[in-house]
Order: sequence, then C-alpha cells, then structure tokens
Amino acid sequence: MPSQFDPPSGTRDFLAADVERREHAFAVIRSVFQSYGFEPLETPAFERLDVLLGKYGDEGDKLIFKILRRGEHEASGEADLGLRYDLTVPLARVAAAYGSQLPTPYKRYAIGPVWRADRPGKDRYREFVQCDVDSLGSSSLLADAEVLSAQSDLLAELGLPEFTILLNSRRVLAGLLEAFGILPEIGAGVLTSLDKLDKLPADDVVAELAGRGLPAEQAGELVTALTAPDSVDRVREALSKSDEGIAGLAEVDTVLSLLSGQVPAGRIVFVPRMARGLSYYTGPIWEAVAPGVAGSIAGGGRYDQLIQQLGGPDVPATGATIGLERILPLLPGAGGPEPGRLDVAVTMMRSDLDVPSFALAAAVRRANLRASVYLGSSTKLGRQLRWASDSGARWTVIYGTQEHEAGVATVRDMRSGEQVQVPAAELGEFLAQAARADS
Amino acid sequence: MPSQFDPPSGTRDFLAADVERREHAFAVIRSVFQSYGFEPLETPAFERLDVLLGKYGDEGDKLIFKILRRGEHEASGEADLGLRYDLTVPLARVAAAYGSQLPTPYKRYAIGPVWRADRPGKDRYREFVQCDVDSLGSSSLLADAEVLSAQSDLLAELGLPEFTILLNSRRVLAGLLEAFGILPEIGAGVLTSLDKLDKLPADDVVAELAGRGLPAEQAGELVTALTAPDSVDRVREALSKSDEGIAGLAEVDTVLSLLSGQVPAGRIVFVPRMARGLSYYTGPIWEAVAPGVAGSIAGGGRYDQLIQQLGGPDVPATGATIGLERILPLLPGAGGPEPGRLDVAVTMMRSDLDVPSFALAAAVRRANLRASVYLGSSTKLGRQLRWASDSGARWTVIYGTQEHEAGVATVRDMRSGEQVQVPAAELGEFLAQAARADS
Repeated sequence: MPSQFDPPSGTRDFLAADVERREHAFAVIRSVFQSYGFEPLETPAFERLDVLLGKYGDEGDKLIFKILRRGEHEASGEADLGLRYDLTVPLARVAAAYGSQLPTPYKRYAIGPVWRADRPGKDRYREFVQCDVDSLGSSSLLADAEVLSAQSDLLAELGLPEFTILLNSRRVLAGLLEAFGILPEIGAGVLTSLDKLDKLPADDVVAELAGRGLPAEQAGELVTALTAPDSVDRVREALSKSDEGIAGLAEVDTVLSLLSGQVPAGRIVFVPRMARGLSYYTGPIWEAVAPGVAGSIAGGGRYDQLIQQLGGPDVPATGATIGLERILPLLPGAGGPEPGRLDVAVTMMRSDLDVPSFALAAAVRRANLRASVYLGSSTKLGRQLRWASDSGARWTVIYGTQEHEAGVATVRDMRSGEQVQVPAAELGEFLAQAARADS
Repeated sequence: MPSQFDPPSGTRDFLAADVERREHAFAVIRSVFQSYGFEPLETPAFERLDVLLGKYGDEGDKLIFKILRRGEHEASGEADLGLRYDLTVPLARVAAAYGSQLPTPYKRYAIGPVWRADRPGKDRYREFVQCDVDSLGSSSLLADAEVLSAQSDLLAELGLPEFTILLNSRRVLAGLLEAFGILPEIGAGVLTSLDKLDKLPADDVVAELAGRGLPAEQAGELVTALTAPDSVDRVREALSKSDEGIAGLAEVDTVLSLLSGQVPAGRIVFVPRMARGLSYYTGPIWEAVAPGVAGSIAGGGRYDQLIQQLGGPDVPATGATIGLERILPLLPGAGGPEPGRLDVAVTMMRSDLDVPSFALAAAVRRANLRASVYLGSSTKLGRQLRWASDSGARWTVIYGTQEHEAGVATVRDMRSGEQVQVPAAELGEFLAQAARADS
C-alpha cells in the first residue's frame, strides 16, 4: 500500500547500495565513451515547452511533465516549461546554440534522468536514466561503426554476461519492400508486422500482413524468406534486385567488417527483419538483446534528418542509447566496499577520551581507510561492538582507560575476534598494513 | 541577447570542460564523505506538492517549480508535484519512509540539483547543485564535529587555496542576549543585525539595533564587545553570567578541541556574532568563508527539531551544506586530459583502408589510450592533421598506401612533429610506452 512517505508514483529513492551500483555503471560508461573521444554534455532538467512540444508526436506531448508559470502567472494554469523527455532534443538545441564552437564532428555522450508521465509498471518508471552517445556531422559509416563499437565495449565492460547485437539497415528494409513488390503506402505497416517475428508465430504475422492488404501468398513468401534457416542468403539474393537493397547490404557489410576484429565472433549478426521503430532512421540500425530480457537493452542507428527536424542544424548524425534501467539488474555486483560501510569503527568508552578517540579515527582516515567514531550514548563495549559489526567494520579500535594510560589502542579483528595492542601513534600504519594484507 | 536556443532562464548547458570540472569535484566530495562512513542517498527530482509546501515559508512556496497534473486533469491548471527545493525535505521523507531499515545514526550525503524559481543573477541559478551531509539520530557533539571535520577535509581536498571556518553555537547567541539583558521579543532581530557586522560599519549596526528598540548605550556596548580586538575574551566573560551562555561555550570548546588535531591552526575560529540565519538551528553552527567570495561557501549546524517539522521522525540531527556553484570557480584545474581530448588520432587516407585503420584505433584503446579515427570526408593529410591537432591529440597515426604495404604505421609526435614507423602489430604497446614516458 502506498504510504504518504513513498516517493511520487513511478519514481524511486536510491539508498546506498543502489547508488553505488548505479554510480559504478556510470563510471564504466563514461570511461568507455571517453576512450573513443566522446565528450560529455549536461543540459538542464527542463526546457522551454515550445522546444519540447511537437517533437514526440501527440502521445509524447501528453507524457511531458509540464511546469506551471510562476508568480502572478501561476493562477493562469498555463505551463511554460517541461521536464526533458529524452536527451536528443536537448542535443539538437545545443547543436543549434553552440554551432561552430563545437568540434566537428561533435561526438558527445550524456547520462542523465528523463521524465515521462507514462503509466508506471514493472521496469517502467516516470523518472529514469538515459545514456546516449551520438556523433553529429559525419556521414561516414565509420561514425556508425564507432558508436556501435563503443556501445558493444561498454556492455562488455559493465560485465553483462551475454548479449547479441542485431544489425540491419533502413535501406535493407526499403530494398526488401521493393524486391517483394510491396506498395509503398503499406510499407511501414508491413515492416512493423515483420519486426514482431521474434515474438509471434510466423502464421500470426502472415495473417497480420494479410490484414494490412498484402496478398496471402506474397506474405507467406516474405515471412519464409525472413525466417528460413538460410534466411540471410535468401534475403541477400532478393535484395540484389533492388538498388536500395544493394546499397543497404553494402552498409551492413561495411559495418560488419569494421567491427570484425573488435568484437567476438557471433556478437554482431545481420538480422534483415529487425526494424527498430525506424520512423526517423536513415541508414544502419541495431539493437542489443540479452537472454531473459524481453525487448532490447540497447539500440541505435543513423538518423540524418532528425537533428534538423528537432530544431537543430542540418547535419548527418548517428547515435545509440542504452536501456540502463534494464541492464542494471543483469549486472554482477559492483565490487568494492559498500558506501557507508566502515573499515574501522572507533569506540567511545569515556566522554573525557573523546578528543584522542576522534583523533584516532582521523589518523585511520589519513591511512586511506574509512573510519568513524561511535556516535551513540551507550558506554557499554558490547553495544558499541554491535554497532561496529552492523556498520560492516573490519576492525574495531577500542580505546578506554587502560589503553589511554598505556599510550596504546586495542585493535579487534571483527572476523576472528582476536585483539592486539598497538602504540596509538602507529595505529594508522598498522591498519593500513592489515588492509593491504587483506586484499 | 537571449536566443531561442539558449537553455531556460537561470539554467545552464555544461559542455565538456565544465562537466569534467564538476565531475571531478563530485568524485572528491564522495570520496571524503565515504571516508567518514557517510553513505549516499538519491531521491527523485520531484516530490508530491504537499510534501514540499509549507516547509520553506510563504516566500519559499512561491519559488517552488510546480508541475501540472496530467491527462484529463491537465486542463484544471492544478499542480500536484513540485521540483525539489532542497535535499533536506526529501531526507526527512526518506527517514520517515524507511525508519528502522536505515542505520542508526543515519549518516548520509547527497549531491544533486535543486530548483528554485528565483530571479536569476550572478552566481544565482534556478537549477543548481546542492551537496549536503547530515547525521540523523545522534545528539552527541561528536556528530557535529564529524560533519564539520568532513566538510573541512573536503574543502581542502578540493584544492580550495584558502578558507576559514567560523564557529559559534545557537546557545552562545541565546546566552549573549540574556547576558546583555535583551528582551526575547526583539532577540531574533538583534541577532540578524549583529550578523551584518562583517558587511556594515559598526556605527550602522548600532543605528540598526537602536531602530529595533535597543537603547543606544546597550547597542554600543554589545557591538563593542563583538568587534573589539579582545572580543572573544569579552564575550566569554559576559557569557559566564548566563546558564545558556555557559552551555553554548562548552559546545564551542568541545568542537574546537575535537578538531584541534585534525585541521591546521587558525582554520576554525570562534566568532560569537556569527548567526547563520538560525531559525531552525539548536546547537553548534558554522560557516566557511573564503577570500574574494561574498557570503559563505559552506555552512552547517545542529537542528534537533527540523526533521520532525519537515514530516520526518523526531530525531536529533546535524548537518552541513556546501555552496558548490560558488566554490567551483575558485578551484584549480581538475587535471587529467579534458574529456573528448584524444591521445591518439588515426588518419583515414584511403576508404579501402578503413578496416585496418579502424582496427589500429581499437588496438590503441586496448592500450588504455583515447583514440578515434578521422570521420570527415577529406583525404588530404594536412586537413586530417588539423583535425588531430584540434582534437588535442598527442600523437597521430598515419596509415596510407605505403604503410599498408610495409605492414607498419607512421606515428607522428604532434608536439615535435617527428615521425617514426612502427610495426602495425606493435602500435598499441609502442604508444602505451610513449605515454608512460610522457607522464
């Protein structure tokens, strides 16, 4: 039952372990993108509403969180700002705003939350992180291959145990329609149906195609060509009859050969029926899929007109996005100590020993370990050791009357329970050594 | 003149160098907080409006960015969500929501944007990052000292060349009013005026105090006690007449002694007139100031009732916040290569050599260097070397007909202009060594 203290519907609070997991992934992603010379961009959470409206279709417009005008205008009930819906429209605005101040090509990545007033559901949030990489200004297939290679590298670097990248080209799809003599007016619908071949039985797709006005025999031939064991050969054969198909095949083959040395064999496969929405794509398109995850975990493609349509300059572009919220649950643990977990807990046995105890914790931190003094009110050792244990501390430093008089600190190994006494002045170095021996 | 492509008023786009500078600061901050055992918390950008309203006073309520209801309710012009105004109200909500699931004390830090519909101005933004650290559940002064010590550490770690922390206690201020026989009903106003002693001439403050109903002689004595060279001694003497003053002095002295070994002498000073707003503070308070910056760059204090007032549980608490937007301009460069800057640029001399050129870039990346191939359309070496230079590349790899036939790559040192030929298979290792020799 939702409580009054829950975060708003479709949003989440991230406590320590979740933040750590996410930050670790972001760090890996940044590092891979930077290794390719992509540079970061951060834009505001909200944009002027006119920048956003009309860019995502009528349905998209409804999903934009709109911000009321302020001050005397608040009562009007009108909105003038909206939370960003994706990271592409802000990119188009930045490309228009900064123009020649940006490098050519402008290779940028962006990692940040976007907001959509969708109905919340499993793995569907109203606030979620997008992770985009785009290359603006190059029409070379090298740019597509670079984006795709970076995306493949980072899925591997994140530790995703298994994934496959399905590659196709918008022009292969156009050629396919041409080669099978499908009328342009039903082309988009046909491709949408074909894209379902992974989810629906072939017969259902044939029926759906027939419903779209494709003669049953033609529909059957098309589906067979796309699902037969020798599908790729059949499609290549069919495409050789279409100029657009030949051009599309050349795109696919170039990208495959560019990546052949970089990614393990079988990781990228040509899948002629993969359509990836496709409304704005103009060249190569791809999607990454992983076992056990419905739909794609990442995808991208070339979109040579979109930046201009979104209000930016007329530049060729290619880019990719990663479904981070879908990938995070698939990843192994981030490793490293959990944030908030202590290496060293320092007891506080007598209030008049607070200054030297506080100084011991500081000395331990100077030795690059995480340390905190006990902040509670109990002076019982048992209670303080329980706190140390709850804090995940590897060692507890006990500093009471006896230690104070002898100029030592007692170090308790929280795994073995063994205790040793160490000169107080050497505590930092002693624990630093113990930590090195541990790792 | 604002252009249609500018970000919304009061917000900013951050290009590569700015993002890097900010990310570097965030990484330092995270690392320092974690060394004290503080753990991260991230909450959504927006909260339900009823969680936010009434928490910041009438003026604050007006500055909240309010989000229109959606769907059929949009036309009502009503809002049901608001962008977070600070990180403290979300903390109170989380403390209420998760209760005993959180560690005791709950030591958390949070770094993230907040939004206020303030009039934009120099160093005043509508979207800006707050960086908070708080300790919930401990009434010990050790908790205050820990927060303060962490804050001092991180200002130093960030490389801030010079700063001073002004320490006081809410109870010292209460004792001061008592010791000088100031009526409680004008107490808050008197403290607000005294807090201006750093900005206004003493006579102006005396006049302001008189305007608040303080007899001129009493006002003069008070201001003299707070500004004389032996001010601290005079104040200590005066406070010895007030129980609250004695208690406040003990707080200040305890915190000073706890930190005496951790921070350089003179970095923390007792400043009895420093009032720090104070509306919700209940114990020690502090502010950090730096030369050349008006106002404070960081501050904090104990606020034992606030979490409950904000809708959370009834827990003692202490915390601090850092004015990151004010600090960032004071910091030295982040060091390290700028994001997007290449170590190695790889030319693309012939389109039929794209596969081996692409593979050379990948080999360089495997040697942990940043590398990209040329993505433009020119086949002229001069044009490509200009791109390499603009990209900040330290080396350019030239791979043309001659190199391809000889199985080598030409490496051009972009500083000296010298060129050497290296077996293509050894390029990665060669450049890794060159980079090591560089650093």
